[in-house]
Amino acid sequence: MDAAEFRRRGKEMVDYVADYLEKIEERPVYPDLEPGYLRDLIPTEAPCEPESFEDLMQDVERVIMPGITHWHSPNFFAYFPAASSYPAMLADMLCGAIGCIGFSWAASPACTELETVMLDWLGKMLQLPECFIAGTHGHGGGVIQSTASEATLMSLLAARCKAVRRVQAVESERSESDVLSKLVAYTSDQAHSSVERAALIGAVMMRKVPTDEHFAVREEMLKKMVEEDKAAGLIPFYFCATLGTTPSCAFDHITKLGPLCNKENMWMHIDAAYAGSAFICPEFRPLLNGIEYADSFNFNPHKWLLINFDFIIPIKKQIRFRSLKMWFVFRLYGLKGLQAHIRKQVALAKEFESLVQADNRFEICAEVILGLVCFRLKGSNELNQNLLKRITKSREIHLVPCQLSGRFVLRFAICARTTESRHIQRAWRHITQLAFELLQEQPLRELSHSHTASDGKLLCSHSRPGAV
Amino acid sequence: MDAAEFRRRGKEMVDYVADYLEKIEERPVYPDLEPGYLRDLIPTEAPCEPESFEDLMQDVERVIMPGITHWHSPNFFAYFPAASSYPAMLADMLCGAIGCIGFSWAASPACTELETVMLDWLGKMLQLPECFIAGTHGHGGGVIQSTASEATLMSLLAARCKAVRRVQAVESERSESDVLSKLVAYTSDQAHSSVERAALIGAVMMRKVPTDEHFAVREEMLKKMVEEDKAAGLIPFYFCATLGTTPSCAFDHITKLGPLCNKENMWMHIDAAYAGSAFICPEFRPLLNGIEYADSFNFNPHKWLLINFDFIIPIKKQIRFRSLKMWFVFRLYGLKGLQAHIRKQVALAKEFESLVQADNRFEICAEVILGLVCFRLKGSNELNQNLLKRITKSREIHLVPCQLSGRFVLRFAICARTTESRHIQRAWRHITQLAFELLQEQPLRELSHSHTASDGKLLCSHSRPGAV
Repeated sequence: MDAAEFRRRGKEMVDYVADYLEKIEERPVYPDLEPGYLRDLIPTEAPCEPESFEDLMQDVERVIMPGITHWHSPNFFAYFPAASSYPAMLADMLCGAIGCIGFSWAASPACTELETVMLDWLGKMLQLPECFIAGTHGHGGGVIQSTASEATLMSLLAARCKAVRRVQAVESERSESDVLSKLVAYTSDQAHSSVERAALIGAVMMRKVPTDEHFAVREEMLKKMVEEDKAAGLIPFYFCATLGTTPSCAFDHITKLGPLCNKENMWMHIDAAYAGSAFICPEFRPLLNGIEYADSFNFNPHKWLLINFDFIIPIKKQIRFRSLKMWFVFRLYGLKGLQAHIRKQVALAKEFESLVQADNRFEICAEVILGLVCFRLKGSNELNQNLLKRITKSREIHLVPCQLSGRFVLRFAICARTTESRHIQRAWRHITQLAFELLQEQPLRELSHSHTASDGKLLCSHSRPGAV
Repeated sequence: MDAAEFRRRGKEMVDYVADYLEKIEERPVYPDLEPGYLRDLIPTEAPCEPESFEDLMQDVERVIMPGITHWHSPNFFAYFPAASSYPAMLADMLCGAIGCIGFSWAASPACTELETVMLDWLGKMLQLPECFIAGTHGHGGGVIQSTASEATLMSLLAARCKAVRRVQAVESERSESDVLSKLVAYTSDQAHSSVERAALIGAVMMRKVPTDEHFAVREEMLKKMVEEDKAAGLIPFYFCATLGTTPSCAFDHITKLGPLCNKENMWMHIDAAYAGSAFICPEFRPLLNGIEYADSFNFNPHKWLLINFDFIIPIKKQIRFRSLKMWFVFRLYGLKGLQAHIRKQVALAKEFESLVQADNRFEICAEVILGLVCFRLKGSNELNQNLLKRITKSREIHLVPCQLSGRFVLRFAICARTTESRHIQRAWRHITQLAFELLQEQPLRELSHSHTASDGKLLCSHSRPGAV
C-alpha cells in the first residue's frame, strides 16, 4: 500500500469509524456467541499473496464485529469506562505516523519532553502538591505507564529497594535475601487483584487489611496489623491505598493512613485508577486530601479522562509517544470540557441511584460518590444472579456483578461518553421489567427471607452503607 | 468534537500523515536542540476553554516536529527498526474506535480470539514446533506483550515459580525465601539490559556468561558456570538465550545450549527481539534451530515485521485489541510481501558491508547476518568517537555506537521501510567524506598505532570475527 492508496483508504476508514460510533446504539451491546467462534471463520494460516482492502473490511463486519463487546455503546454499563474521544483518535493517527520509540531523550526529544510537561499539566489539574510537579524543583514529575498494574508494581519495587537499603544501612551484616524474606506489604481487601500480583512478582509478603462497613481501610486496622507484624520480626515497608475501589468505589482514609505510613517508614502508594479523573473537579478534589503523605500516586486517564492510557508519579519509564494524546485532548476539550464530562457522568449515576431508591424492591449497596451505582434486588444472591443472567441474555444493556460482604451485587457504571439520561431511563425500565418477570416466577418465600443466601456464601446481612 | 467534525479533521489528518511520510526525507533526521527546549514553547497549564484544531496542528509543526528523531526517515540507521506500515496505521484507527479492553474473553471475545489465531499464524510463519501453536493441541500458543522486556520478565517469573515448586516437592521443609535466595539465572554478557532488570525485579541472582570471539554464548562456558554454582549450593533455574544481540546481532548456540538446559532442569527462554522476524524466510529459519528445546520464545514484530508491538509464547496477558494490526498487515502484505521486506533490508545491509570492505581505512567488526553492519575506522576509539560526533552533528544520517570487546564501534542498521540502495550509497559517501576530513586533521601516528585505544578501555586488539 503506497501513500496514495493510504490517503484513499484512510479516509474510508475515518468514515467507517464515524459511522460505527454514530450508529453503535443499533448494535447489541454484548455478543451472542460461544467461545471459539472465530477460529472457524478465518483461514488457519496467513495468506501467501496480499489480499484486497475490500475483502478485509468485509471480514471486519463478518468476523470481528459480531464478537465485539461494544464498550462505547451508551448501553454499556460494565466494568469502568474505557476512555475514547475523537481528539484522542486524531492524536493516535499522528502518533502512529511519527512512530518513534522514546526510550531516551535522543531517541526523540519531543516525546520525552512533551510527556514531562503534559504530566505537569495533569498534576496541576489535580492540584497535586508541588513535589509531584517536575517543572517546579525538578524532583517530582509523572510518567506514563502501560497499565495501572504496572504502576503499582513499579511503586512496590521502588519501595522494596528503599527498604532493603534502609535496613542494611543500620544492620550491614544482613543479607538482601534475609531482608526480603521479612518484608511485608499491605493493601485493602477490596483492592484490585493487580496489587496482590505485584507482591507475587516482587517476591514479598502481602497482607489484606479488612475494611470497615463502608469498604474502606481505617487507620486502626492497619496499625494493629503493622504492630503485630513488627512484634513477629517482620518489616512493614509498603501500603497501597485505594481511592475508588473496583467493586464499589470506596475510599481508604488516607488522611489518617498517610501519617501512620510516614511514621512507620512505609511507602504509601495511592491507586486511584478510576476515581483519579474526578479530582479535576473542585467539588471532588477533597477526596484526594492526604495525597501530601504519599510517595507515589497513579490513576488512569484512560478510564475517565477521554485519553487511553495510564500514569504514575514519580517513577520513570516510557516507550511510545502517548503524551501527544493528552495534548490533543486537553487542548481540544479544555479543562472545562473535561470537568463537564465528569460532572455529567456523576449526575447520570445519581439519576440512576434515585430510580433504584424509588423502587422498594431494590436496595443501594454502597454509597454513590462518583459514577458507579452498586444495587441489588432485596432477596437472595440466587435471585440477583438470575436477574443478571436475564440482563446479559437480553443484550440490550451490559453490566457485571461484584461481591460485597458476601452479597451478590450488580454494578451499574456510567461508561460511554455518549450515555444520556434517556439511556439511563431506558436501562432502568429494562431492568425493572426483567425483575418483574423474574419475581412473578419466584416463590413468595424468596422475598420474605430476603437476606438468606441460597449459596451459603453470605457473610453479612446488614443493610449496606449508603443505602437509604 | 462531534462525528461530523471528526470526519473532516480525520481526513485532514490522513493527508497530514501521508504528506509527512512522503516528504520525510526533506527533514533533518536528527533534531538540533538542547534538552528542555519544549517547556518554553508551550503554556505551563492546560487551557481552561477548548482551543481550535487549526491552532493545535500549527503547534505540531512549531513545537513537536523540531524535536522529533525521524525513525521512519530512509536516512535513519540507528538502534533497530521500529516497524510502521500503512496497513498497521489503518488497523490502529479501527482499533481506537472499537476501544475495548480485552482482559477477559467476555470483555470482547473477538479481541481474545483473534489474538490466539493471529499468533498461530505467526508461529506457523516461523515454523515453530507444534507445541507452540494453540490450534493444534491447545497447550501452547502465543500472546502479545507490551515490550520484549515484559516478555523476558514473564518468562523469568514462570521459571522462578516452577523452580520453587520443584525444589519444595523434594525438600518440603525448605521455605520459599530460602529457595529464592539460592536461585541463579544466566544470560549472555551481550544480552539487552532488560534481561538483567528482569532478574532484579524477580529478586534472583543473574550471572553474565562470557561470549566467544563471535559474541555468542557457547555450551562449554555455561556448563562450567552451572557446575560451579551447583557445587556452591546454588540452584541454576533459567537461561535467557539471545538470537540477534543488540550490539552486533550475534546468535547464541541454542542447539547445544538447549539440551544442556533441559538436562539441568533450567528454563530456556529465547529472546529474538530483532532477528525473530527474519525467520519467516526459509533461508534464515536455520538460525532458529534449537527452538525445540526452549520453554518460551519472544520476538518483536514491532521491530521488523511492519507491526508495532511484541509477542511471547506461552504466557498469558492482553489488554488492547493489538491483534487487529497483525491481521491487517498479514493480509494486506501476504507472507510473500513480508518476506520481500526482510530480504530487501538484508540485501541493503550486505550492500553497505561491501562498501565498507572495499575501503581499507575501515573494518567490519562482526559478521553481517541480517540487517545490521558493525564497522569502524581502523584506529583508536577516540578517532571513531570523533567520526560519530561529526555524523550526528551533520544531521544527514543518524546512527548510534556500541562497544564490542572494548572497542568503540558504529552500528549501521537498516531501519526505515522506505530505505533504498540510493540512501545506502549516499550514506556511505557522506561517512567517507567526513572520515576523509577527520583523517586529514589527525596526526599520522593515529593510523600507525591503529589498535591502541586512547581512552585506556581497550580489551582486545585482534581483528573482529566476520571481518574479511
